Formats: sequence, C-alpha cells, structure tokens
Amino acid sequence: MSTRTLPPTLTPDAAAALALRVRSGELRAAARLMRLLDDRVPGAEAALKALHPLTGHARVVGITGNPGSGKSTLTDQLIAHYRRGVTPPETIGVVAVDPSSPYSGGAILGDRIRMMDHAADPGVFIRSLATRGQLGGLSRSTDDVIQVLDAMGKDRILVETVGVGQDEIDIVKTAETAIVVLVPGLGDDVQAIKAGILEIADIFVVNKADRDGALRTVSDLKQMQSLGQKPRTWEPPILSTVATRGEGIAAVAEAIEAHRQHLASDPERLARRQRERAAHRFRTILMDRVAQRLGVLLAEDARLETLCDRLVHRELDPYTAADELLARFAG
Amino acid sequence: MSTRTLPPTLTPDAAAALALRVRSGELRAAARLMRLLDDRVPGAEAALKALHPLTGHARVVGITGNPGSGKSTLTDQLIAHYRRGVTPPETIGVVAVDPSSPYSGGAILGDRIRMMDHAADPGVFIRSLATRGQLGGLSRSTDDVIQVLDAMGKDRILVETVGVGQDEIDIVKTAETAIVVLVPGLGDDVQAIKAGILEIADIFVVNKADRDGALRTVSDLKQMQSLGQKPRTWEPPILSTVATRGEGIAAVAEAIEAHRQHLASDPERLARRQRERAAHRFRTILMDRVAQRLGVLLAEDARLETLCDRLVHRELDPYTAADELLARFAG
Repeated sequence: MSTRTLPPTLTPDAAAALALRVRSGELRAAARLMRLLDDRVPGAEAALKALHPLTGHARVVGITGNPGSGKSTLTDQLIAHYRRGVTPPETIGVVAVDPSSPYSGGAILGDRIRMMDHAADPGVFIRSLATRGQLGGLSRSTDDVIQVLDAMGKDRILVETVGVGQDEIDIVKTAETAIVVLVPGLGDDVQAIKAGILEIADIFVVNKADRDGALRTVSDLKQMQSLGQKPRTWEPPILSTVATRGEGIAAVAEAIEAHRQHLASDPERLARRQRERAAHRFRTILMDRVAQRLGVLLAEDARLETLCDRLVHRELDPYTAADELLARFAG
Repeated sequence: MSTRTLPPTLTPDAAAALALRVRSGELRAAARLMRLLDDRVPGAEAALKALHPLTGHARVVGITGNPGSGKSTLTDQLIAHYRRGVTPPETIGVVAVDPSSPYSGGAILGDRIRMMDHAADPGVFIRSLATRGQLGGLSRSTDDVIQVLDAMGKDRILVETVGVGQDEIDIVKTAETAIVVLVPGLGDDVQAIKAGILEIADIFVVNKADRDGALRTVSDLKQMQSLGQKPRTWEPPILSTVATRGEGIAAVAEAIEAHRQHLASDPERLARRQRERAAHRFRTILMDRVAQRLGVLLAEDARLETLCDRLVHRELDPYTAADELLARFAG
C-alpha cells in the first residue's frame, strides 16, 4: 500500500463541523481553520461563510509602526491591560502581521515566544501571518483571521502590522481604531512617514518616550496636525508611552475607548466606518479570487515560458499579452 | 465660451509623438509620460508600447532598507560615483518609491531637494512615486517608470524603495541586482526582517557602519548566511558603508559589477533572471488591468452601497457577493 499524500481539501461536512467547533470557542479548531484559510485550502471558505452571521461584534484596533518602534511590546501591554486592568476582563485576539518574512517564517519564533507569555491564558489567542507571495494576499489572510477571532466571540482584536506598505496601511485603516506608533529621532525618512500616515491615525503613540527627542517628535506631530487640511470632528490625540515599563498604557486604552465613543455618538459615522470596512473586505476577497483564477490560467498555460521569452526578446509587449489573456479570461 | 476641463486622454497620434520625443531623450517629454502613466490616463500606454522595443538595455539595481537606514544617501552616493567616478560616466535614472505616502505627496519635498542636487546634470533623471491607492498599483507604476528611463537610453537605473511590503520586495527582487541596506542595532524587529529578506539580497550593505553594533550586525548576517538552506553559486557579499561620508561606495559599485559578471558568466542564469523580470511585469500589468476593470464595474454598480449595507448587517457574506460579481465579469 502506498502512503501518498492527498491534496488537502475540506469537505462541506467537515467545514460545517469545524465552524461549529470554532463558534463554541475551541482553540484548536480555530487555529486549524486559520491555517487552512491561509493555505487557501479548497472548502475552507465554506466554514467562514457559516461563521459570517456571528461576526461584527469584536472591536478591532489596528496598531502600526516602523520596525523597532516597539509596537509588539505596546500590543503585549495592551493585552495585559485588557486582561487584568479592566473589569470584567475582555477576551483578546491578536493578529500579528509580519510582512518582513516572504519566504522563511520569520514571524514564527517571535510568535512562539509571545504565545508562551500568554500560554496559561485561554482568553488570549495570538496568530502571526507572514507575507503571501501574491498581491493583496496579506490583506485577505488578515481579514480571514479577524473573522475567525470575531466568530469565536473575542471582545477585542488587536491587529499589529510592521511597516508601511499599502497592504498594511489598508489593514490598519479599516480597523475601528487605528494607532500609529512612532519613536523619537529616527531621521528624515520617519518625517516622511508621519506626513503620509497622518490621515489614517486615530491615535498617535510616541513610544520610547524616555529617549532624547521625544518632545520634539510630539511637537513635530502637533505642528503637522495644525497644518491639516480641514477641521475634523476627531483630533487624533498624541500620547507618550514607555511600553517596556508599561508607562502610558492605560491612557492609550482610554483614548481607544474615547474614539469608540466618538464613533458611536453619531450613528451615521459608525455606519460609514463599518461600510468602509465591509467594502474593503469585499474588494480584498474579489481581487484574491481573481488573482487565484489568473494564477491557475497562467499555470495551465503551456505557452507562459514561451511568452516570457518573447517578452524578453521584445517580440511582444506585455500590454498586448495581458489584453490577450484577459480576453480569454473575461470571454 | 466655457472653459470646461476635458477628461485627460492621449490620442494615438499624441502618444506616438510623445514616444518619439522620449526616445530622443527629451526630459520634459519623459516626465510628462511618467505623469500620464501614473495617473492612468487613457492612451498613455500606447506610448509605452511604442517604446517597448527600445527597452531591456539598462542595468537595473534595486536598493531597499528600513526607514532611517540611509538608503537615499547611499543612492545619492552611487549616482555621484557613476557620474564622476567611472570613465566614461554612465547616465542614470532613479525611481524613488515612497510607500509611506498614500495620500499627501510626502515624497515630493525630498524629491525636489534631491533634484536640485543633480539639477545641473542632464545625465541624471530622478522620479519619485508614492503609493497608489490600488493593490499592486505601486509595482505597476514603478515598472512603467523603469521602462521610460530604459527607453530614454539610461545606462543604469537605481530603484530605491522604503519599507518591506510585498510590493517593494517584488520591485527589488526583480531588479538585476538587489541591495539590502541595514543599520546597526535597531532591535529585534530588524532581525526578523533580515531573516525574511535574506533570499532577495544579492548584496548586503551595513550602512552607518561607524555606529555601535556594526560589527555585530555584520556577524549576525554572516551567521544567518551560514545557516542558509542550499549551496549557492553567488554568496551575497556583506559590505560596510558610511554613506554620509562616501565611505565604502566604490566597493558597493564593485560588488554590483561582480554580480553582473556572475549573471553574465552563465547565459542561462542571466536569461532566467530576465524571464523572471518579464513574468513579473506581465503579471503586474495583468492584475492592474483586472483591478481597473473591477473598479469600473464596482463604480458603475448602483447596488454597491446597498451591497455594503447588506454585508454590514450580515444579510450577505462577502464570498457569495464576490462570486456573484465575478460571474458577471467573467461571463
């Protein structure tokens, strides 16, 4: 008897059973579904469809910042705050998006270390994601994990992203509350990032505030805000923290709550944010599907290698080639 | 007479004329074409199609690194090297990709400052790009600018990207030579990035090498290389620079040349790299077209707002919604 490996797939029955186990809060079932979704295993999506009516209740907080800004530490401190600093404690899901790791699982080690921190706490679920090879794949996988955590009944989901790529900006932008973490004095590049990221931040955190230049960073931010285009109903607060010592964390949690109150104070405002989030998720799924179908089409196409040779030798231009393929795709 | 603004578009004749002016090296024509392409002005692509047979001669060098790593300074020093340190001087094109700036043109100020540095030198053309709102839009725009610079006859094109998002990794990965710039001692996050980026680097540069921890960073990199999976025909050199003082720049240029020689020493190896680049460009154009068509479809769809409301209220799940739209798209 051979022991051949079957291509992984999830039958409709298995998907339904898995969804049931996830909604009852089974950690291993949730972890398995996330893995299947991340691997784009056929049939896994059916479980998400089944869970969809259960979602939309968790408060999603996005946290972004440069490598070295200490946002992982800030996230860990926020977990501790919501677990031990509030009554009743909130259940927490964390999605740590690490786009720095396209091939090797650079996130895995850090993930394990952090999992151990909260290993004894069933109220905390942490999942790390590395970049998918595919355009937009990261947004899709992140959204999927958020959905699973939401369906599990987590009160709050913290989405932590490294870097400032478009994918990560989209991920944070569509959270209910977006936190941008900065550190003092990283030079001119950071100034540019601040300028670009002004519009997506609901809250600014200047971490490592015990360092030289912290006041300068705060005043730079204030000045940029004062140069802002239009009057806003919500002026993003600028908070200082020393996350490694837990300083300023309660104030960050208060600002998150204040921002939530601000959204909720105007039903139309909250609805708009929810629609934006739904539209983003819809677009992400749509593009992911298209990318997959085109990928299949390209892989099936025996002519792809020939095509590339013709492109290299300038016998064909890529615009015409793309139009030809699309004509086949869109009939 | 009214002075209404016509929607910008480029007629076939105008595109052909513009292409002619670009191939004769006219700077203003090149700048105009880049702007039209970046704005996705209908008809602009025809100019690129016309220029396509002229491309494929420039040597494309990708330079990436975290914000604050000093890669802009390194790029500037490389420009100076190729303009004044080699005989005959090379003509240089630069694409500075700044994904930190999704809304405001954060890149523009830096661009102007750098343009002034080289304003008196017609042999240097610098173009900055900010992130496009659309998935993969950045890759597409960067490729377009590279094509225009190539068609202008630039000997060498330096592509500088901030950050480590998937788009930027793809951009650098498909260059002929990929340089990854690191700085000493930015903490654990950077270690993760190093791990993820190991495979795309043809050359490592440890910049700000006069700082504490530089030797440590070099030895960390060496250790990671020694842990590498398979024996490689090209072992990425690890070079130390102090770009602000021009130290180590000549060695970087030598390593770029050595890498080129390595590629050229095996025709199949060079061909493979060129095919990878062509395939990446083809995929990028394909996905960009699909995103645009879907965007049009979504914008035309009066039901989009209703759709989002139904998604928010969980009356419909986004997978089913995406399948329905795709069925209409792909007929």
